[in-house]
Amino acid sequence: MGDVKILLDESEIPKQWYNVAADLPVPLPPPLGPDGNPIGPEALTPLFPMALIEQEVSTERWIPIPEPVRDIYRMWRPSPMFRARQLEQALGTPAKIYYKYEGVSPAGSHKPNTAVAQAYYNQKEGCRRLTTETGAGQWGSSIALAGAMFGLTVRVYMVKVSYQQKPFRRSMMETWGAEVFASPTNMTQSGRAALALDPNTPGSLGLAISEAVEDAASREDTHYALGSVLNHVVLHQTVIGLEAREQFKKINEFPDVVIGCCGGGSNFGGTAFPFLMDKASGKQVRLVAVEPDSCPTLTKGRYAYDHGDTAKLTPLLPMYSLGHDFIPPGIHAGGLRYHGDSPLVSHLVHLGLIEAVGVPQLATFQAGVLFARSEGILPAPEANHAVRVAIDEALACKQTGEAKTIFFTLSGHGHFDMAAYDRYFAGDLEDYAYPEEKINASLAALRPVSLG
Amino acid sequence: MGDVKILLDESEIPKQWYNVAADLPVPLPPPLGPDGNPIGPEALTPLFPMALIEQEVSTERWIPIPEPVRDIYRMWRPSPMFRARQLEQALGTPAKIYYKYEGVSPAGSHKPNTAVAQAYYNQKEGCRRLTTETGAGQWGSSIALAGAMFGLTVRVYMVKVSYQQKPFRRSMMETWGAEVFASPTNMTQSGRAALALDPNTPGSLGLAISEAVEDAASREDTHYALGSVLNHVVLHQTVIGLEAREQFKKINEFPDVVIGCCGGGSNFGGTAFPFLMDKASGKQVRLVAVEPDSCPTLTKGRYAYDHGDTAKLTPLLPMYSLGHDFIPPGIHAGGLRYHGDSPLVSHLVHLGLIEAVGVPQLATFQAGVLFARSEGILPAPEANHAVRVAIDEALACKQTGEAKTIFFTLSGHGHFDMAAYDRYFAGDLEDYAYPEEKINASLAALRPVSLG
Repeated sequence: MGDVKILLDESEIPKQWYNVAADLPVPLPPPLGPDGNPIGPEALTPLFPMALIEQEVSTERWIPIPEPVRDIYRMWRPSPMFRARQLEQALGTPAKIYYKYEGVSPAGSHKPNTAVAQAYYNQKEGCRRLTTETGAGQWGSSIALAGAMFGLTVRVYMVKVSYQQKPFRRSMMETWGAEVFASPTNMTQSGRAALALDPNTPGSLGLAISEAVEDAASREDTHYALGSVLNHVVLHQTVIGLEAREQFKKINEFPDVVIGCCGGGSNFGGTAFPFLMDKASGKQVRLVAVEPDSCPTLTKGRYAYDHGDTAKLTPLLPMYSLGHDFIPPGIHAGGLRYHGDSPLVSHLVHLGLIEAVGVPQLATFQAGVLFARSEGILPAPEANHAVRVAIDEALACKQTGEAKTIFFTLSGHGHFDMAAYDRYFAGDLEDYAYPEEKINASLAALRPVSLG
Repeated sequence: MGDVKILLDESEIPKQWYNVAADLPVPLPPPLGPDGNPIGPEALTPLFPMALIEQEVSTERWIPIPEPVRDIYRMWRPSPMFRARQLEQALGTPAKIYYKYEGVSPAGSHKPNTAVAQAYYNQKEGCRRLTTETGAGQWGSSIALAGAMFGLTVRVYMVKVSYQQKPFRRSMMETWGAEVFASPTNMTQSGRAALALDPNTPGSLGLAISEAVEDAASREDTHYALGSVLNHVVLHQTVIGLEAREQFKKINEFPDVVIGCCGGGSNFGGTAFPFLMDKASGKQVRLVAVEPDSCPTLTKGRYAYDHGDTAKLTPLLPMYSLGHDFIPPGIHAGGLRYHGDSPLVSHLVHLGLIEAVGVPQLATFQAGVLFARSEGILPAPEANHAVRVAIDEALACKQTGEAKTIFFTLSGHGHFDMAAYDRYFAGDLEDYAYPEEKINASLAALRPVSLG
């Protein structure tokens, strides 16, 4: 048996992030203000430090990773890549399956890759307090961790359904010193408005974002941190794909297909964008974003200008969206319950450079259990979406006899998601129908994106 | 900043386990049967495969690790060693602190090191079903994982207090395909007897062992697997210390003190025994076993012959014990709630080659929170015992100005222990007084160990 893990040295942690904005065949349309006109970077200064705003609009291809950020990355990076030999055997596929495991970070997912960078820049520019939202708790944990590393106070608005499903994610954030509240709260106008409409709302990422943004905008000492969607967030996650490319070089392989689960888009974009450089230089590689078919942003949403949050506090972003009022069912992949998607991922899907596919909840858990029993690692429900499609690709190879090289990012472990596995085994989980007819009208009202 | 992680290649996974029985200055006294006479290996055949029985009594210094076991080890081994630079800074100590992190295994602790070996030998000798007990759930998870890897059916008797405190450990075992029951159950004679005495008993490791042994002994197709205490179990864990010694060689360092938490003794023995070779060759190194002061086996128990379980189904083992009837308080370090200890660890403590220290519960959580906020990783409550003593050693260095090299094994992560952290933050955790007077009489009745 050859090596199971493909490892890099600490010296091989990337020294620069890859900014896909430099290589877009058509430029990314700008965000718009409430008046419908493009907004400049200055509109973001109440929420973000200048360094992150500059990254948000930059078209430089390579952006240096500050040494203090790389020093924290050393705690878990470079993350390992694994050959999934036992999964291959279980499937009886001629395909080779590789996965990069981001669950080795202390918070258990890819999210600290950007949390650490965001905390660093905020601290460097004198910010002392951060607010944020979290869905499944992966992001909140990560910013809590990063806050502890850089001495920042952190407040997390956690989507209520996840707060209830994952009490120990809250404990984890508190252990790292953060304050955590179930969103909607009665501490913000956005929260109070949502509770007035429906006191039993399960909450949503869009709503939690509204609360965190409102909190940050109302205090001088506070900035806001977003765990996905925005360009600078996806930028920081490109360490995943950059390392993966080096890992493939070490073993003289190259993937035929690159797969990532996609909610706000940072895990998928961070994994896939660096491979666009290979695609541009003529290599054949498919890039596949996987989303839940109950929240099918890329596969059934509209490419349009929409707000990132429910209360319409954020600028209008050019993205695939199901409408900022869309509240997805309480599926267990909380990190994928977002009405919109990264503008960069959306743009590249729209341009045809990236594929998107939706998968039903039960099939993702089935894939996750098979993965756990063969590869050992217990995946997060979000990551199971990528596992599902990797398995489907491998099974297709079994039909055709092709020995494709399949690569996916296993974005996090499921240690805080065992209640979901319990419900899956008990037969209590459902597949949800997406209410297509119900929301088509509101989608049609969104302002379309013009590519000039 | 130098490297934070000290890594080895997969080719550097040890090819042999180190058997400290070969190097004891005084031989280990034999286990005794119910008649008080030494028992031979054949007495163990209803419970264990021959290969493990041979390891149990072997005095060969090096025992080859089968390739199929090394192949599974590759999933997470060699485990990383970290320099705890941020903890050092937080403490303001001149000491250097290193820790080896065993939480990288899929089950989240060191336990799979032996679980995989035990499952392998059982499967190889035709066994199809394993029973075991688990305290904190670390061991049960590990044997569930190993069972999945080698196609064995696994039944786990889980100490009731842990079953209640850690429901998601159960889910994890079930995800890997194991059956899990809260012990005492009404499915065994030992369980029924315990429930008759006290229907509300929190259970204990000793009692759960009784149930698992009774189950295994009553079925032809079933063997029993023990997660600690026995010689072959500690043997398998020596991969920890063997790798650590190689990692120290890579950085030209050597520890002044080696620390491990100690319940049944496999984590501590696995960490410390290989360093006895250095001690024997004249190097100065202290080996410190850390236990909870509410279950102070090594520090307040008697070195005597005692049963490993409550129902007296096991042979009499020569070990430090608090008496097989001792049921420790429901502290959150469930893996350290054992009345006895590894005969090998006990013997070496008795011979003065190993030190032992007891620490109170609250101080261990305080240490764990400081560790989490500086090093990122959230330790298991068991591991916090080692963290506590490492910090105490580092603070002593701060007083004396000595730049000692402190090494400990962080035996597992605390992802399934967040309820304990919750209780710690809420002020609901207690330090327990050990009932010294109450049990001294029963200790005095134990048969002393003669070293011949």
